[in-house]
Amino acid sequence: MQRLTAWGVTGIGEISPGMQLGDVIATACAEPPNGPLQNHDVLVVTQKVVSKAEGRLVDVDPDDPLSHKAIVEAEAVRIVRRRGDLIITETSHGFVCANSGVDLSNVERGQAALLPLDSDRSARRIRDIVRARLGVDVGVIVSDTFGRPWRRGLTDVAIGVAGIAAVVDLRGTADALGRIMQVTEVAVADELASAAELVMGKSNGVPVAVVRGADAEWFRDASINEIVRPASEDLFR
Amino acid sequence: MQRLTAWGVTGIGEISPGMQLGDVIATACAEPPNGPLQNHDVLVVTQKVVSKAEGRLVDVDPDDPLSHKAIVEAEAVRIVRRRGDLIITETSHGFVCANSGVDLSNVERGQAALLPLDSDRSARRIRDIVRARLGVDVGVIVSDTFGRPWRRGLTDVAIGVAGIAAVVDLRGTADALGRIMQVTEVAVADELASAAELVMGKSNGVPVAVVRGADAEWFRDASINEIVRPASEDLFR
Repeated sequence: MQRLTAWGVTGIGEISPGMQLGDVIATACAEPPNGPLQNHDVLVVTQKVVSKAEGRLVDVDPDDPLSHKAIVEAEAVRIVRRRGDLIITETSHGFVCANSGVDLSNVERGQAALLPLDSDRSARRIRDIVRARLGVDVGVIVSDTFGRPWRRGLTDVAIGVAGIAAVVDLRGTADALGRIMQVTEVAVADELASAAELVMGKSNGVPVAVVRGADAEWFRDASINEIVRPASEDLFR
Repeated sequence: MQRLTAWGVTGIGEISPGMQLGDVIATACAEPPNGPLQNHDVLVVTQKVVSKAEGRLVDVDPDDPLSHKAIVEAEAVRIVRRRGDLIITETSHGFVCANSGVDLSNVERGQAALLPLDSDRSARRIRDIVRARLGVDVGVIVSDTFGRPWRRGLTDVAIGVAGIAAVVDLRGTADALGRIMQVTEVAVADELASAAELVMGKSNGVPVAVVRGADAEWFRDASINEIVRPASEDLFR
């Protein structure tokens, strides 16, 4: 029976621009308690540390809400909804989220973190370094914390993947009664990101988690574009 | 360091109307490989078996799409969007999902499964029986598989809870740099449902999973209403 295990990676420390995040993670995961890693482990890395390592930080006036708002609008390709201070936007990546993913928490006062330019590339770089340093083939997911319509509370989702599927297509697979199932595309990368969030928490400074036990069939070349629904297919923008 | 583990519960077998699901689960989880359960374990139970046990099945003409559609509309309190065969509705519980949650897969041909009338109550009943039978205090989540706007692929979410929070409010908690975080309400029940889905799959007939290692602070009286966003707060219906 398949068993999934997830744990937060300790000892990552503060990440600053120019640091090679893959090296930091490989060092932290080389031995207990975080490692050793195995083939088919999944590393879930929060957007915040990816953005910091890649220098995706901009100055913001912490006392002027308009300063933050201007950055949010500059990062948007479409304003989807606006109500009071809340702005739901579509980013250049095709993500629809609050504030274009621009974040003021867990960064220095006076700075805001932008989303990585290409989170698949960020994930791939971490994956490549981990393979080179530790000799294991892992999947890497860059995660972020998004809200959603209709339901309160945030969940972590994937915004970049490497070596692990974003969406697994079970269309045409027989269900337990032998009927052909009509549509079952499962967003496994989002579910893995959510599982990882449960061991990272939001305020305890654990920006990386390992998830072990994902289905071996999910490990393949992949792109977050699998999960981005084009506007033409979407009923809510 | 917190470690989360999830596994599918084997040996549940086929569930039919009138069966006491809590007893079935307690029996399956009394000993290895599924148990013994511990205090603060979370049982995630898919809606399908809850609906079957509670007799929430209606006849449908499998050769007439209008037959299914009529049931979907009867279960809806609001049609949120409609495109071709796809109907996004709001149910009496306040859930917004495809087809009012009415499901044709994994039920006998000629039948459709409706959502439980009160999934919190369904969860509570399972929790009470497990406590009485096995002497452990577990959280119970009834899960279902929902789509979402903007992102392809389905994820499992909570539609009922007992003994475990739906949403954990971290507003006001200091972030790792000591700043007060503005809004961090985490939908832990949805994340637990997603973690469980990863070990249940969609077509292999494992309708129950155990998740061990959830934060002890999340265990409390709760209701799925914590996660249902009222229409008045919602920008997308």
